Amino acid sequence: MKEQKIVVLPGDGIGKEVTTWGKKVLETFSGKNGIRFTFDEALIGHTAIEATGNPLPDETLQKLKASDAVLFGAVGHPKYDNDPSLKVRPEQGLLKMRKELGLYANLRPIRLFDELIHASSIKPEILKGADILFFRELTGDVYFGEPRERRDNGNVAVDTMIYSKMEVRRIAKRAFEAARTRSKKLTSVDKANVLESSRLWREVVQEMAKDYADVEVEHMFIDTAAMKLIKDPRSFDVVLTGNLFGDILTDEASQIAGSMGMLASASLGDQTGLYEPIHGSAYDISGKGVANPLASILSVALMLDISFGLKAESAKVIQAVEQTLKEGFRTRDIADATTATDKIVGTDAMGEKII
Amino acid sequence: MKEQKIVVLPGDGIGKEVTTWGKKVLETFSGKNGIRFTFDEALIGHTAIEATGNPLPDETLQKLKASDAVLFGAVGHPKYDNDPSLKVRPEQGLLKMRKELGLYANLRPIRLFDELIHASSIKPEILKGADILFFRELTGDVYFGEPRERRDNGNVAVDTMIYSKMEVRRIAKRAFEAARTRSKKLTSVDKANVLESSRLWREVVQEMAKDYADVEVEHMFIDTAAMKLIKDPRSFDVVLTGNLFGDILTDEASQIAGSMGMLASASLGDQTGLYEPIHGSAYDISGKGVANPLASILSVALMLDISFGLKAESAKVIQAVEQTLKEGFRTRDIADATTATDKIVGTDAMGEKII
Ligand SMILES: CC(C)[C@H](C(=O)O)[C@@H](O)C(=O)O
Ligand SMILES: CC(C)[C@H](C(=O)O)[C@@H](O)C(=O)O
Repeated sequence: MKEQKIVVLPGDGIGKEVTTWGKKVLETFSGKNGIRFTFDEALIGHTAIEATGNPLPDETLQKLKASDAVLFGAVGHPKYDNDPSLKVRPEQGLLKMRKELGLYANLRPIRLFDELIHASSIKPEILKGADILFFRELTGDVYFGEPRERRDNGNVAVDTMIYSKMEVRRIAKRAFEAARTRSKKLTSVDKANVLESSRLWREVVQEMAKDYADVEVEHMFIDTAAMKLIKDPRSFDVVLTGNLFGDILTDEASQIAGSMGMLASASLGDQTGLYEPIHGSAYDISGKGVANPLASILSVALMLDISFGLKAESAKVIQAVEQTLKEGFRTRDIADATTATDKIVGTDAMGEKII
Repeated sequence: MKEQKIVVLPGDGIGKEVTTWGKKVLETFSGKNGIRFTFDEALIGHTAIEATGNPLPDETLQKLKASDAVLFGAVGHPKYDNDPSLKVRPEQGLLKMRKELGLYANLRPIRLFDELIHASSIKPEILKGADILFFRELTGDVYFGEPRERRDNGNVAVDTMIYSKMEVRRIAKRAFEAARTRSKKLTSVDKANVLESSRLWREVVQEMAKDYADVEVEHMFIDTAAMKLIKDPRSFDVVLTGNLFGDILTDEASQIAGSMGMLASASLGDQTGLYEPIHGSAYDISGKGVANPLASILSVALMLDISFGLKAESAKVIQAVEQTLKEGFRTRDIADATTATDKIVGTDAMGEKII
């Protein structure tokens, strides 16, 4: 029996509530197929700052480096959002973790479950059949560029947007390979009409396109993409973009899936893989037992497939989500007030249904 | 009779077709109310590069500086988009013009005409009553920050995101003042959980909020804003944001108005005002006589109001647009295939109807 070490990082806000259920789903597969999952937990974010003063304690980092996969919740706390001058911040833990683990490829599949087609603000006839796979670069761009500082007695603030060809190439390669297994269409999003870093991005993707002659490549400006994603989501299949533009586009795209509460993501590099919902810590609903655990559970489906090659098990998780939705069970965020058959349940009841 | 000098800058692609009609609408008001409009034309963008090698020739800049208002079309050409290595680019003309004229405040009103509520991909019941006024900062941010360069033999590209307190303050002041005359609600959009420049942005807006105690201020991250704009557009009234985030959000918001072809904008500073559609040069439909002239015509409505204080005349233009839509006339981009009463017309027929 092969042991696979999973580190669970609940983090802040609803992170704890949702990873609890992600973990329980994983447990149901442990000891089968020759794989046993062992679990460990560690601190990150505001919770880690409160306990240790550090948003990513060394102990956490060591555990992560020794892990086979990470199940992550969310970080963030309103306290920091309201006080931009605070120097130690929960998000630093997340960013440092991405960088230290070399998780440069963030995959965000936007899958619309038929049952949720009416939960979206977008018309069902526009959405029907939409299925997008985002590749967001995750360890470069203005998230990490230096200098990042105050100047002129604090009166001026600077961030640095930066990309190297190598950074673009390695994420683009993953996107091209994925496009090959899907509809062979890749949309690369940048702002090459203004930014030098986007011109480099576009050059590299154009160059690589020659080696993937079977993939149809389209280049799109971020402003156009933000518009077209809503106007015609079915015109996208694989989308490749940088860290900042990917952050914006994937949150926007959550409306295609009906709710942020449904979206899972995988962050990959050359070592361990990290799996997390794209929703944040959502302090406004935290502790109330109403958070939607499906994004964490769908993150586990990604983990089973990508980190452990358990494709059938991954499909089973997705099926369980489909089935539960079909039976009418909904957390608040995906409930449709106009549908009398919706059965509104809390986090735990939803988790139980899936199990 | 007071003379007011208008410079018309058709620019590239459909810019010429649509400004032709903006100008004709302006002409109908000339010689009334003690104001006479005189017109001059100048080159910008790809058209200017072809003629002079320069996307913003000195002659154009001199005319603009001496103008009372500018009616601008669009710049951009596919040739440059496909070749990121070209050094002289149409957009440089636009950016230099914004900078040289000090047009730091870009106002983009998102008004949904009742008749177009079905042209949007968003559900009518989500849209009904949406009315947003964007204030996009236009002469700072990563659009202009230095260094902007290649390093390491061209293998690395850098742009600089930068804001000073002064730059944030002057655009925020305009947004706060506007919020006072509307529903007293201001949403400031940034990425303060990651960017130093966004933390400065948030600090300044928080500080100023004390002087506008009657305005309710909300701070939102750009990723959340991109999502919420689609999920619940009516929760926004006045939106204040930086150059890059404003570029993305306003294009996205065009889907609230049914089409990019309906959206006008005003770019203001301390001297002349510039008025332009938010749509681009749209080469794919240029020269075919199908472009929607309404955004250029609605830009003229903004000009009459803001630059010349002709409020009644401005309202008349908007009424004419409303009336024409009510009569069922539509350019292709705003036509609704499911509505049998739509009369699809080209650029000129639409322009004539308005006149
Ligand atoms: C919390 C924040 C730093 C993070 C990001 O911007 O990457 C989040 O929005 C995400 O998308 O994972
Ligand atoms: C053409 C381009 C440089 C421009 C911008 O990004 O500002 C355009 O998208 C706009 O919004 O006016």
